[in-house]
Amino acid sequence: LVTPLSDRDTLDVRGLERLVEHVLDGGVQGLFILGTTGEGPSLSYHLRCELIERVCEQVSGRLPVLVGVSDTSLVESLNLAGCADEAGAAAVVVAAPYYYPLAQAELRRYIEHLAAAMPRPVLLYNAPGQTKIRFELDTLRRLLGAANIIGLKDSSADMIYFHRVLRLAAVRPDWSVLVGPEELLAEAVWLGGHGGVCGGANLCPRLYVDLYQAAAAGDTDRVADLHAQVMAIAGGIYSVGCPGGGVIQGLKSALALLGICDDLPAEPFPRLDDRGRQRIRRHLVHLGLAADVPGESISAAEENHA
Amino acid sequence: LVTPLSDRDTLDVRGLERLVEHVLDGGVQGLFILGTTGEGPSLSYHLRCELIERVCEQVSGRLPVLVGVSDTSLVESLNLAGCADEAGAAAVVVAAPYYYPLAQAELRRYIEHLAAAMPRPVLLYNAPGQTKIRFELDTLRRLLGAANIIGLKDSSADMIYFHRVLRLAAVRPDWSVLVGPEELLAEAVWLGGHGGVCGGANLCPRLYVDLYQAAAAGDTDRVADLHAQVMAIAGGIYSVGCPGGGVIQGLKSALALLGICDDLPAEPFPRLDDRGRQRIRRHLVHLGLAADVPGESISAAEENHA
Amino acid sequence: LVTPLSDRDTLDVRGLERLVEHVLDGGVQGLFILGTTGEGPSLSYHLRCELIERVCEQVSGRLPVLVGVSDTSLVESLNLAGCADEAGAAAVVVAAPYYYPLAQAELRRYIEHLAAAMPRPVLLYNAPGQTKIRFELDTLRRLLGAANIIGLKDSSADMIYFHRVLRLAAVRPDWSVLVGPEELLAEAVWLGGHGGVCGGANLCPRLYVDLYQAAAAGDTDRVADLHAQVMAIAGGIYSVGCPGGGVIQGLKSALALLGICDDLPAEPFPRLDDRGRQRIRRHLVHLGLAADVPGESISAAEENHA
Amino acid sequence: LVTPLSDRDTLDVRGLERLVEHVLDGGVQGLFILGTTGEGPSLSYHLRCELIERVCEQVSGRLPVLVGVSDTSLVESLNLAGCADEAGAAAVVVAAPYYYPLAQAELRRYIEHLAAAMPRPVLLYNAPGQTKIRFELDTLRRLLGAANIIGLKDSSADMIYFHRVLRLAAVRPDWSVLVGPEELLAEAVWLGGHGGVCGGANLCPRLYVDLYQAAAAGDTDRVADLHAQVMAIAGGIYSVGCPGGGVIQGLKSALALLGICDDLPAEPFPRLDDRGRQRIRRHLVHLGLAADVPGESISAAEENHA
Repeated sequence: LVTPLSDRDTLDVRGLERLVEHVLDGGVQGLFILGTTGEGPSLSYHLRCELIERVCEQVSGRLPVLVGVSDTSLVESLNLAGCADEAGAAAVVVAAPYYYPLAQAELRRYIEHLAAAMPRPVLLYNAPGQTKIRFELDTLRRLLGAANIIGLKDSSADMIYFHRVLRLAAVRPDWSVLVGPEELLAEAVWLGGHGGVCGGANLCPRLYVDLYQAAAAGDTDRVADLHAQVMAIAGGIYSVGCPGGGVIQGLKSALALLGICDDLPAEPFPRLDDRGRQRIRRHLVHLGLAADVPGESISAAEENHA
Repeated sequence: LVTPLSDRDTLDVRGLERLVEHVLDGGVQGLFILGTTGEGPSLSYHLRCELIERVCEQVSGRLPVLVGVSDTSLVESLNLAGCADEAGAAAVVVAAPYYYPLAQAELRRYIEHLAAAMPRPVLLYNAPGQTKIRFELDTLRRLLGAANIIGLKDSSADMIYFHRVLRLAAVRPDWSVLVGPEELLAEAVWLGGHGGVCGGANLCPRLYVDLYQAAAAGDTDRVADLHAQVMAIAGGIYSVGCPGGGVIQGLKSALALLGICDDLPAEPFPRLDDRGRQRIRRHLVHLGLAADVPGESISAAEENHA
Repeated sequence: LVTPLSDRDTLDVRGLERLVEHVLDGGVQGLFILGTTGEGPSLSYHLRCELIERVCEQVSGRLPVLVGVSDTSLVESLNLAGCADEAGAAAVVVAAPYYYPLAQAELRRYIEHLAAAMPRPVLLYNAPGQTKIRFELDTLRRLLGAANIIGLKDSSADMIYFHRVLRLAAVRPDWSVLVGPEELLAEAVWLGGHGGVCGGANLCPRLYVDLYQAAAAGDTDRVADLHAQVMAIAGGIYSVGCPGGGVIQGLKSALALLGICDDLPAEPFPRLDDRGRQRIRRHLVHLGLAADVPGESISAAEENHA
Repeated sequence: LVTPLSDRDTLDVRGLERLVEHVLDGGVQGLFILGTTGEGPSLSYHLRCELIERVCEQVSGRLPVLVGVSDTSLVESLNLAGCADEAGAAAVVVAAPYYYPLAQAELRRYIEHLAAAMPRPVLLYNAPGQTKIRFELDTLRRLLGAANIIGLKDSSADMIYFHRVLRLAAVRPDWSVLVGPEELLAEAVWLGGHGGVCGGANLCPRLYVDLYQAAAAGDTDRVADLHAQVMAIAGGIYSVGCPGGGVIQGLKSALALLGICDDLPAEPFPRLDDRGRQRIRRHLVHLGLAADVPGESISAAEENHA
């Protein structure tokens, strides 16, 4: 889930409410908040806690909410986890700490300390592009022994690694191995993965649910069609903004054009300018995602930036 | 300055007091707290604020205190800067935000937003090993126009870059260009740099002050002798711990053996074990740094780990 | 195809003959010699030319032979291509030159010069792990206009990139987009790729041919079974040797144990020692690949190293 | 030494002769041919051999000639070394093989095999930007035991590493530790290095000889002046061309403007275009390097490209 903002340190509360219902209507099986697309590390702590509380309250048990608590400070990760626990989250998600370069031994020890103190089950988050380190197979092998670690979200985009993790995790049938980049959802699920965390599901959740189901069923023709749509969204909506921020900027801009929520990213990423928004609009129309949207709603969203 | 801890989220208050006096006695010209060696990103916010307040109060204007406020959240950097401002810090130090991969345009914009909102002068901190990005020369050229940015601490260990920055910054005679790794202090100062931020000064501040002065005076023989000592400390004390954490673990262990403060690092780095501590002790003796320390004091420090 | 050697600069001629027939018997659709697994860049020029001539003569038109002519010297690439042309090769394969760091403009220009002077069709070879550079999409887009460039072998292991290349290359229906790492063959073919270049096909060519066909047919159950075997070979045979050389060392050692050819790699990689060979043997048995091999043949191969 | 070319595979023989005399007139203590700036890996073998023979013959013992024989094929490195040996070169220079990713154990073994078979003393060449691997200290420690390895040229631009190598190599007083990037010559020599291999010495050899002597003498003021000139050349002449090729393109273009040799680089780098050459000319004038050159000579050089 992206985090709708109306200002640097203020949630777009109404936008958030609309967004949650929009995504739930699409048939997703869970919500992951405060991840990379959710801009967790860019937000203040009080705003992160407010988001956790609001989303958990709104979802109210309709599906599990997973909360990203990644941080460079173990103490602050635990503080966030306490907030998630009180709010009724299903699990917390933790990446490697991302300031100091680390070796695997220290990474493993850090995760073990963290998991031992966590009030909720822990999903590991492999995000080497952000954290400069990945969970090597031998590290994962040892972490399989920690009962409250329940799986891995792999955003490395390395499918060889993903296949190896699947083989490794076979000893823990309760583990979920989820794929990060949505361009890899089809093959990840087809070859045994348990699902994906797809930023594009903020925009058109049904597409990713359908692709998941088609891949799980081995429906090659349907997968080819849906996978092409996913590639077109990534090659279109995500390509307009800046390096590192294009997914966030593109999704927020598209959601604003659809009248769902504000398009302001957290720093360091800027809001798309008029030209960028026009490009997003054209992509939405071209993708067939803006067909049902009345012109007024788009205009209203744009007026905010006049 | 390292941050003495007695527990994961508790300052070693007495150790901190001893450490500050130890370093000031060595003749340094300023204190930099909450940097990389200070484990800033690994500490909770309330502990960071407590440290800022205690150090500023103890120093009480005897020399300038620079406060690291680097974060992935601009809002939290501003919160820390507010704390530093109230405590009377001389300046704040900011690295690039370190979660998302960034391009230079977004880095520059981020720093401009940050600097514009900062209540104190800003020293930039180039730390690509931690942040995955460096301040490119063209970015620095533009940031030279921001009046409340007053210099750069360069921890890239790239001396070609350092020399280029010096040439560039000549238009801002009020800028300080400081070098990070102490192994490069001699040449950095000899060729025009304004000083260094040396972690080893926690242990033997006089050595680094002397080296700075010898290099500034072009005293080749004296530099050769002092530089060799600096290399020996780096090759000895810093080589015992784990990758990424060796400087912090080595310094804290040595300081504990000298009876100055606790040797507990913040996670993700562990305290050195008995074998590691014995190696540090041997290095201290070999380096002539443990000569004046009474045996009792070492024993006392070791009893804490019995 | 691996390159069987009996000495640093001498082909294992009989081993090569056996190997070629072994692979052809497995039903493959082409041979790629002097690639990464073929140790092209580690071999002397006269040996590379001898190999080209021998393989082309032996194959004698039964299937297309593709010849790796990658080099850091454009002139030497052309010399090798001349040799391939005379021998009757079907195409040449070229990676980016791999000594100097390059930008895309110079890479494109280099490939255009090379392709213009090549006597045979050119298959591009994307191998960033070896060459430090990949063919960016925009570069490929421009190279699609060169008539005698006929496709890309992508060994980046980046399936998002692979999917993007497939979308891009749709305008050139004569292009072949082949995948490098065999662990990705299933998904690459299932989602539209035209095939793979699989080092493991030296050992058990039928397995990779079967997996290709099952993936192309969307036969999920059969793919799951064959893909698991491919993963087991990679996780077993290729894991015994040294970093960077494990595939070559493992394949050559296994082929020697099966009595097909010598196990000597070209420098910088050493022959597996006795312990390594025992591990390869156990993997072969465990994988069911050594069942049909008479004990004598294994002993004979081992006697060479007594 | 750059390698003057009049065509892709043809030496500019007259230009080469002028260049060698120009450099020798500058007072250098040795010549290094076929290094990175010498475009060794981009040249055909027969051209490399011709260059070795011509330079050795022309120099005729006036100073030592070092010959780069780096290659990805050990056999071809030995072939080149045989050529260098026959021509009377003083030593050969070898980098790590640069195609396969390597670990230190295989790198060390490769160098040991190579050195054992070399007919001349071997200078190691640390060039991680080209080879993807550096000689780690522990590897160097072991290679210190090989009698015919006589030193290291370090082009890593990592001065901490350089200082560590100097400390390590103190047990081999016959070793030379030379620095690669000329921007680091001053500090490298001041702190104990034995010299530098400076591409800029093709253009103005006296400057680098003077800087070496001033740094060795600890003459701070003179070093400051000469170091500033070196930085100005690097920031000017080398900044005009393309990434990775700017040093080669800039030097060759400047030498052509001075009437010394042709400006054609080997592929993958293009000759600077007219605009680039005008920028080089302006840098030359600005640097005071074109003052003595009659206008006709520049025009003549330019006519070649009209």
